[in-house]
Amino acid sequence: MTDAERPAFTLANPDYAARVRAEFAAQGFMGFIGAELARIEPGRCEIRLPRRPELTQQHGLFHGGVIATLADNASDFAACSLLPADAGVLTVEFKLNLLRPGGGAALSARGEVVRAGRTLTVCRSDVVALAEDGGETLCATALVTIMGLAGRPDGPG
Amino acid sequence: MTDAERPAFTLANPDYAARVRAEFAAQGFMGFIGAELARIEPGRCEIRLPRRPELTQQHGLFHGGVIATLADNASDFAACSLLPADAGVLTVEFKLNLLRPGGGAALSARGEVVRAGRTLTVCRSDVVALAEDGGETLCATALVTIMGLAGRPDGPG
Amino acid sequence: MTDAERPAFTLANPDYAARVRAEFAAQGFMGFIGAELARIEPGRCEIRLPRRPELTQQHGLFHGGVIATLADNASDFAACSLLPADAGVLTVEFKLNLLRPGGGAALSARGEVVRAGRTLTVCRSDVVALAEDGGETLCATALVTIMGLAGRPDGPG
Amino acid sequence: MTDAERPAFTLANPDYAARVRAEFAAQGFMGFIGAELARIEPGRCEIRLPRRPELTQQHGLFHGGVIATLADNASDFAACSLLPADAGVLTVEFKLNLLRPGGGAALSARGEVVRAGRTLTVCRSDVVALAEDGGETLCATALVTIMGLAGRPDGPG
Repeated sequence: MTDAERPAFTLANPDYAARVRAEFAAQGFMGFIGAELARIEPGRCEIRLPRRPELTQQHGLFHGGVIATLADNASDFAACSLLPADAGVLTVEFKLNLLRPGGGAALSARGEVVRAGRTLTVCRSDVVALAEDGGETLCATALVTIMGLAGRPDGPG
Repeated sequence: MTDAERPAFTLANPDYAARVRAEFAAQGFMGFIGAELARIEPGRCEIRLPRRPELTQQHGLFHGGVIATLADNASDFAACSLLPADAGVLTVEFKLNLLRPGGGAALSARGEVVRAGRTLTVCRSDVVALAEDGGETLCATALVTIMGLAGRPDGPG
Repeated sequence: MTDAERPAFTLANPDYAARVRAEFAAQGFMGFIGAELARIEPGRCEIRLPRRPELTQQHGLFHGGVIATLADNASDFAACSLLPADAGVLTVEFKLNLLRPGGGAALSARGEVVRAGRTLTVCRSDVVALAEDGGETLCATALVTIMGLAGRPDGPG
Repeated sequence: MTDAERPAFTLANPDYAARVRAEFAAQGFMGFIGAELARIEPGRCEIRLPRRPELTQQHGLFHGGVIATLADNASDFAACSLLPADAGVLTVEFKLNLLRPGGGAALSARGEVVRAGRTLTVCRSDVVALAEDGGETLCATALVTIMGLAGRPDGPG
């Protein structure tokens, strides 16, 4: 979507950025693989992940599961940015096309909200491989369905 | 599927088990998260993964990306078991419903071939949470499309 | 799933069969293509459709859209059978693998509930081609996510 | 995608438009539901369908199966436009999020190629509801995987 086509979203939580950062930090798996929250805006999120040998499949490329993890999370946090502070976030389902091998020096996953409903939010994530010289190659695209759990905030306890 | 309903498969590579074990071992990501190849049979594969804090989301449960990784790989290796020795394996796409939180002491992902075509293989994976007492809870189900790359074997080089 | 593996469901609407039949009859599209509600049980539904030239693609086989329609609806009505009488039914998303050409004299789509949650129900549908001699060939499999709309019954008005 | 972001495609069949029109006309199901091929360009296709009572679900809105049919076909023909004249077209799988009810006077399904590979083509379709006054509402989005069958042209015989 171009910026002109992108729907305007209502902001239910002015502190959405702080919330998303806190949730990202609370996910052990994000730290374990070395992912960074690169950008969070209303209805959009970008996650970056430098390549490491531990994240690869048998050809030394990013593992499909790593690509799926980033696609899922970028959409999740894009959705989370629009939810009320006391609403938990749950991925209902996602579907992913792997378009090209996950090469490059790093991955960037960009999630955006396609439709923010009362109960469900539908997002799209594109995952691009970033070359050393800054070149980008689209390597996966996903559709993700997320449920907001009203009155059941995320977080410890 | 019950065993009676399950289709009989043609075995193109008698050394399929050795091949799958070698590919599993060559995937840095499988070792990194601590996954084990629990079972490999023609058209079926099981992968197990004990819970560790590094694999969780913000509630201390298995991260959705970890569940997706196992679902993808269990199907991949189920498909791989039926391919000729010189055919590479590529996940084309997958889609996953997360049915229940990923709790328990470990996950078990069970992949099986639904349809083995000339070019494409379609598989299904179920991911169950294993409790300490051995109880099982279905927490995700996936459909996975895999392409066999004739004459382009996996492996180093 | 075998009958032993299939979960037992709570019946929220004892008149589920009458409801499903009424909704099926109210869908103009089901009558238009000639589909019949062959079976409805708690958490399971079967729809049949005889082949007609109007339902084909360029090779005279069942059109993929027809196969998708049946897969969607068989899951929808399987979910509907478990919902309270005053809850509407909405397909959130579905994903479908077309496994073999849709040949045969008729199609049979069999939907079953995999997970009945408070808000969402996840179903699986298999679509088989029925030969004149009664032989069955699996031609598609689908996962379908359905939302129950509490207090918003379906029906005219 | 904006036009600037859209990849440039290689045209393997200069008569792609005639081919797509012929295949569309040969699909009995397209004529049966009243669909029209509104636009065909390299890597893009639009199909339109006026509302008729025969195409509805129980609320008088477009049936989800109709929406799925258009999404599938718009992607199929977008892919077909880039294939060699002697290559058949087969939908491998698709996944669809239904975002809003299918209201309006007509539907427009717009498919575009996201990735044209050697064997597989991945497309995206958006389906919008068209109001009498020309207003558009996005009601579904889909990802579709299509296989080109080299040397196996579509068509009678």
